[in-house]
Amino acid sequence: MELKDLNLEKLIKNNREITNLGNVADYIPELSKANKEDLGICILDNNGNIYCAGEYQTKFTVQSISKVVALMLAILDNGEEYVFARVGMEPSGDPFNSIRKLETSSRGKPYNPMINAGAIAVSSMIKGDDVKDKFRRLLDFFKEISEDQTLEINSKVYLSESETGNKNRSMGYYLKDEGIIKGNVEEALEIYFKQCSIEVTAITIAKLGLFIANEGRNSLGEEIISPRISRIVKTLMVTCGMYDSSGEFAVRVGLPSKSGVGGGIVSVVPNKLGIGIYSPSLDSKGNPVAGISLLEDICNELKCRIF
Amino acid sequence: MELKDLNLEKLIKNNREITNLGNVADYIPELSKANKEDLGICILDNNGNIYCAGEYQTKFTVQSISKVVALMLAILDNGEEYVFARVGMEPSGDPFNSIRKLETSSRGKPYNPMINAGAIAVSSMIKGDDVKDKFRRLLDFFKEISEDQTLEINSKVYLSESETGNKNRSMGYYLKDEGIIKGNVEEALEIYFKQCSIEVTAITIAKLGLFIANEGRNSLGEEIISPRISRIVKTLMVTCGMYDSSGEFAVRVGLPSKSGVGGGIVSVVPNKLGIGIYSPSLDSKGNPVAGISLLEDICNELKCRIF
Amino acid sequence: MELKDLNLEKLIKNNREITNLGNVADYIPELSKANKEDLGICILDNNGNIYCAGEYQTKFTVQSISKVVALMLAILDNGEEYVFARVGMEPSGDPFNSIRKLETSSRGKPYNPMINAGAIAVSSMIKGDDVKDKFRRLLDFFKEISEDQTLEINSKVYLSESETGNKNRSMGYYLKDEGIIKGNVEEALEIYFKQCSIEVTAITIAKLGLFIANEGRNSLGEEIISPRISRIVKTLMVTCGMYDSSGEFAVRVGLPSKSGVGGGIVSVVPNKLGIGIYSPSLDSKGNPVAGISLLEDICNELKCRIF
Amino acid sequence: MELKDLNLEKLIKNNREITNLGNVADYIPELSKANKEDLGICILDNNGNIYCAGEYQTKFTVQSISKVVALMLAILDNGEEYVFARVGMEPSGDPFNSIRKLETSSRGKPYNPMINAGAIAVSSMIKGDDVKDKFRRLLDFFKEISEDQTLEINSKVYLSESETGNKNRSMGYYLKDEGIIKGNVEEALEIYFKQCSIEVTAITIAKLGLFIANEGRNSLGEEIISPRISRIVKTLMVTCGMYDSSGEFAVRVGLPSKSGVGGGIVSVVPNKLGIGIYSPSLDSKGNPVAGISLLEDICNELKCRIF
Repeated sequence: MELKDLNLEKLIKNNREITNLGNVADYIPELSKANKEDLGICILDNNGNIYCAGEYQTKFTVQSISKVVALMLAILDNGEEYVFARVGMEPSGDPFNSIRKLETSSRGKPYNPMINAGAIAVSSMIKGDDVKDKFRRLLDFFKEISEDQTLEINSKVYLSESETGNKNRSMGYYLKDEGIIKGNVEEALEIYFKQCSIEVTAITIAKLGLFIANEGRNSLGEEIISPRISRIVKTLMVTCGMYDSSGEFAVRVGLPSKSGVGGGIVSVVPNKLGIGIYSPSLDSKGNPVAGISLLEDICNELKCRIF
Repeated sequence: MELKDLNLEKLIKNNREITNLGNVADYIPELSKANKEDLGICILDNNGNIYCAGEYQTKFTVQSISKVVALMLAILDNGEEYVFARVGMEPSGDPFNSIRKLETSSRGKPYNPMINAGAIAVSSMIKGDDVKDKFRRLLDFFKEISEDQTLEINSKVYLSESETGNKNRSMGYYLKDEGIIKGNVEEALEIYFKQCSIEVTAITIAKLGLFIANEGRNSLGEEIISPRISRIVKTLMVTCGMYDSSGEFAVRVGLPSKSGVGGGIVSVVPNKLGIGIYSPSLDSKGNPVAGISLLEDICNELKCRIF
Repeated sequence: MELKDLNLEKLIKNNREITNLGNVADYIPELSKANKEDLGICILDNNGNIYCAGEYQTKFTVQSISKVVALMLAILDNGEEYVFARVGMEPSGDPFNSIRKLETSSRGKPYNPMINAGAIAVSSMIKGDDVKDKFRRLLDFFKEISEDQTLEINSKVYLSESETGNKNRSMGYYLKDEGIIKGNVEEALEIYFKQCSIEVTAITIAKLGLFIANEGRNSLGEEIISPRISRIVKTLMVTCGMYDSSGEFAVRVGLPSKSGVGGGIVSVVPNKLGIGIYSPSLDSKGNPVAGISLLEDICNELKCRIF
Repeated sequence: MELKDLNLEKLIKNNREITNLGNVADYIPELSKANKEDLGICILDNNGNIYCAGEYQTKFTVQSISKVVALMLAILDNGEEYVFARVGMEPSGDPFNSIRKLETSSRGKPYNPMINAGAIAVSSMIKGDDVKDKFRRLLDFFKEISEDQTLEINSKVYLSESETGNKNRSMGYYLKDEGIIKGNVEEALEIYFKQCSIEVTAITIAKLGLFIANEGRNSLGEEIISPRISRIVKTLMVTCGMYDSSGEFAVRVGLPSKSGVGGGIVSVVPNKLGIGIYSPSLDSKGNPVAGISLLEDICNELKCRIF
């Protein structure tokens, strides 16, 4: 089926009841206010077409999807070798907020940049004069690649994340002890908590997806990141992007994707499409339950899996 | 570059020195007799062309590559739902012969069919009148899909595997205790040890790869397994096929692949090529060190990565 | 208070209701037939006095209490150095049937002889012409030190243990792979399952306790094991005897003790008393719930704690 | 042998060469300045006799021995029930600075107050108007029970501990996330790092030992802590006091003891003696290697083991 023939409204309708199988995140008050039944999608292609349905205009915080953005900037800032000497490329098999492997594994570094420990390490590598400048650079980079100059953080979410984020803080200090975080831990965490609190819509996320689909080129065709960095990011999204459901997701959906507990999913159809989902009802692994089902339907229709 | 223009001899020559960075498996005497410097390749396309270089005619035992074959037959025998209710689809982040996650994970089943625990569970699901019949069916299935009627087990290797395979035996009884293995553990292990001991060459392995590349069709175009099963297998090869180096391998090479400690690698270029490698010098994770480098070179030349 | 003034009947009565807080073991049918409300005790002193109350004549299988007996014989057979080169002396912090530390610890040996993995290793060290002879020697040794020539195994329990003991089997093969079990794993397991199936009463267990209290001397004052071996055993009973409740038990009761899932506890008041308990209702750690409470009351009355 | 007949000088001489088997702690510069060959001892009895030899006047930081002091005060401040609802009583089987069990165990609390995680939790429970007052109360309590009014912290050590103590900081934030630390984490850590930095000699430590030996009474016979608290502390010293060598130490020495990486050991002969050791050369577990050997010799001579 062609993308233009896809009945997104119907797919949204069919999958909306699946939102009942999950729950919105509730570890901070702001997130628990999300509407569990919400389900929105935006698909962008390279001809400038945009297809949207459902709550695609609802704002939500980007959360773990920001790990993809920070990783690209950290590689730009430090080079691939530097980054992956300090963070691995392997799925961990453990929940996203697990600390145990930092101690039990002989690797001596976080397994990958998509689990919290790895992402905090990555955020600590972003360059800048001070912590404000570092985050500003990250936000500017996100604006540039998503071509959305309106991006801002949700201060309430940021403050809550920072206040309650003691497990992340615990990982940060562990990484400091291991020499993986070089500078100030609280600054690394500030960047991490802030990047998670950036507000987006499904449209923003679809734009991010299209940027990665186009191997790091913006809508004018300008290369912002190299095809190699883009490929690394895509690959890590496949193997590690959906927490410890990445393997099953690869079978069901089979697109490089990254989820966030705010309800977002970015998916990439290489060289073709960027897909942004908003689906705040999460399964037990922290992934948007209806959003995954919606993506599976779309892949069945469009035959766009990479596998 | 076109496949026909690929200078395989030169690539073999360039990568042969990399064999020095690893060592042949030595946990059983038979494997330690392999020639560490060996490096062979066979590439098959859909037009019946065959490109070979190096020690592509050397016999070696298929070892963990057989997990892919057994998985396909177990799904044919029991259905996808039955199999994946008992074995997961997630990378484990631990070494291939690790037992810990059977106890520490809340999943209650082996993480995936590519680690030993999962593979033993899968082998226990193959149907047949008795253990001999079960293994015969597996061997016949392997012969059918690789279109190689000469396949036999190496009895010396089998006996050594069986004699020394106490960690696998340990996993088998653990799985029995968990109710994942239904029948006799020693029979499941017999099938598992025998399937690992089947002798192949890089050519056999390339044929297996082409079969998977063609979505489960043989050279006559007959569908032996469904495209869906083929897709599941390919996906699991990407996320879990190279032990706990699968993530890095996906970045470096980016083809669905499965390695074995006998030195083999099967790689799949979807809809196009089957690749068989023989490279018995292994890195610390148990993967063929020169074989991976050779595959990386080929992917750089042919631009055939799936990512 | 003097032992002779202790009102055992009243203590039994007071603690019998605590049996409701636990459950009898049910992993094999024979054990689940035990009467949950049963609570019996036998206390022996060095003047030949015997104080009994409750179901002290009820037969039950000795289960893990046999680990103490096997350890003494294994040290007699092989020497302290040999045994503790292969089994540690440390509490593990994990449940008694846990396998994970065999893989995750750098020690390379089971933590102590009181967890299953360590006990199976110990049983494999008992000397004899063949497996029958080895077990006969163990049974004879138990008869000798408990001065009870009637000891026999409960065949039904033994067969059930053997049939369902796949987690123990899993540990056995893991230990074989590590080189800690030298001979045949199934034989080691046969001895282990048989020793667990020996039938005793609280009286037998009290005699075992008195033997240890008297530093390895029998009622005639003959030294069967050296004071040093006796001391090692007593110490391991303190640090590891009550599974992963040993620490709390040491605070509450403070006597060298060993429990079994058959409901038994042997406790030792050094140089003074041997105590045998029968209390088949177990807490979540597998320890006799009312038996521990009864022991705590006795220690409060007699002020016989070692701490 | 009587204490007065013990040739301490000779025992020191005999054991001094054992200091070569270990190394002084070097994670902070101050500790690495200790003289590896040093070995000192002080033994106090209830008649006011004092027996000393070797470097018993050398000052060193008390380090983990302070965990015993803080535990007593925390129980005094909060009651036994409150404290042990938040910290367990079980040996963990893991190194003292391990974090894994906070995540992998179902207990949901640190295993015991003698590993770092448990000790940090305990220090967070000490009452006071503010962090200064809390530490002042702890220091005053230490002065009271050791009857040494000169105790002070070594500021250099404290600053180094605080600066480099990121693994402890990691545990602190993990405990905060779990709700085990109620107040400010940095304040809890400040108390913990300061208590570890208190300077003592073997004499101070021997006085602490005698206080515990006398069930919480000072030299005037006044009860500072209850016999029950004293018993709990003694018991935890037996099961958990020597890190993950506690089991072997109990067999070799058999006295309630607590070591510190500054080189100190406090040992208790119940109702009789307090022993203080200074032995900065540590074994691989972080315990004073010559000090343990010296204690073993003394126990062999005096027959003062509790087992």
